Amino acid sequence: MRLVTLISGGLDSVTLVHLLKARGHEQTLLFIDYGQKHLVEHRYACKCADRLELPLEGVIIAGASIFESSLINPEFEIPKGPYTPESLAMTIVPNRNAVLANLAAALAVSLDYDGIALAIHAGDHEVYPDCRPEFVEALKILLRVATGQENFHVATPFLHWRKYRIVLAGDWHGVPFGETWSCYRGGMLHCGMCSTCIERKNAFKVAGVYDPTKYEGNDAVGGDA
Amino acid sequence: MRLVTLISGGLDSVTLVHLLKARGHEQTLLFIDYGQKHLVEHRYACKCADRLELPLEGVIIAGASIFESSLINPEFEIPKGPYTPESLAMTIVPNRNAVLANLAAALAVSLDYDGIALAIHAGDHEVYPDCRPEFVEALKILLRVATGQENFHVATPFLHWRKYRIVLAGDWHGVPFGETWSCYRGGMLHCGMCSTCIERKNAFKVAGVYDPTKYEGNDAVGGDA
Repeated sequence: MRLVTLISGGLDSVTLVHLLKARGHEQTLLFIDYGQKHLVEHRYACKCADRLELPLEGVIIAGASIFESSLINPEFEIPKGPYTPESLAMTIVPNRNAVLANLAAALAVSLDYDGIALAIHAGDHEVYPDCRPEFVEALKILLRVATGQENFHVATPFLHWRKYRIVLAGDWHGVPFGETWSCYRGGMLHCGMCSTCIERKNAFKVAGVYDPTKYEGNDAVGGDA
Repeated sequence: MRLVTLISGGLDSVTLVHLLKARGHEQTLLFIDYGQKHLVEHRYACKCADRLELPLEGVIIAGASIFESSLINPEFEIPKGPYTPESLAMTIVPNRNAVLANLAAALAVSLDYDGIALAIHAGDHEVYPDCRPEFVEALKILLRVATGQENFHVATPFLHWRKYRIVLAGDWHGVPFGETWSCYRGGMLHCGMCSTCIERKNAFKVAGVYDPTKYEGNDAVGGDA
């Protein structure tokens, strides 16, 4: 199958690219700059494309105040632990996955591909409405109608996986985890304290897989990987 | 109701803004630059926002080859009449309306608004799959899931209207049609020969409303408005 795979440079999407390549699918990768503070992730998307010799396309969405989120707006600080539903809600980027998936679908149609692939996983279902199975179902219906392609494919192999299973799959497929980026703060090292750093650490811990990530300092909240 | 209205600067979306204003809705307008050759339309969106004293936000989608279409790619010429299904298909921008509507929805959530408004109309159903009623239905379901807002509103008052009815409504509401832009070619005057110019001319003719548009030369294909 020929797929446009959305890649952020994070552990999930990089593992997805490795997995789909191992399964024999043809891929064009798509990285989208939507104003995220952690644009450092782009270099990890590039590393993945280089490593697997895959084409990488880029799109920039530029414009004031479309996405109101601590991940973008400099007026809001990215929350540190301990985590509450309120602080996690600050990391929601409204309707982000629908925007990104629809851009990927536009590229897929332009390339005459079979569909798109997304690294959505079960760990995000509670906080992010656009990571849930019902979102993927609605997206499939929309894309089939909007593209006029009845068989337009939306591949989400991690949809019912917790993150530790992605780590296990990545380990199996030889993903160099040190060359993936998760942290929302976007410094030179993972902060170890934002929600995605804590989730990353815990995933390695639960999977029993060595975590090569260099975290800032020793003041981690969520784990001691 | 508070709505983000997608505005292109064209006859349909400008009439929509006037109509919603007359009905008492609060609006923020959103113009999206997706690489269209006819970016001249932006100035007509600005004129509308100025005239009605409404906030206008802008987003730029930049990136190579996402949207394969004669409306964007300089390698493809925008087809002139006589029209065939093949030449009209060249003016399709893959999945455009899904991308634009989802960006508008992101802004609506960020502004804590009730929903979005789109100027989709019945004249486009045959050629453009993302202008059909089933697209709007699928979009509504997706947005309610993706935003987590069960009552998220998608207003499409023109969905079952032919373009001449939009002209009649615009005439009723005092839309200055000379300050709207339709032409895909994006010169300083409407070319009078591309599909959207022909549709525009015919709409005025069928509605029996004076067409103040200045068309280039006298070599029009679709009408003599």
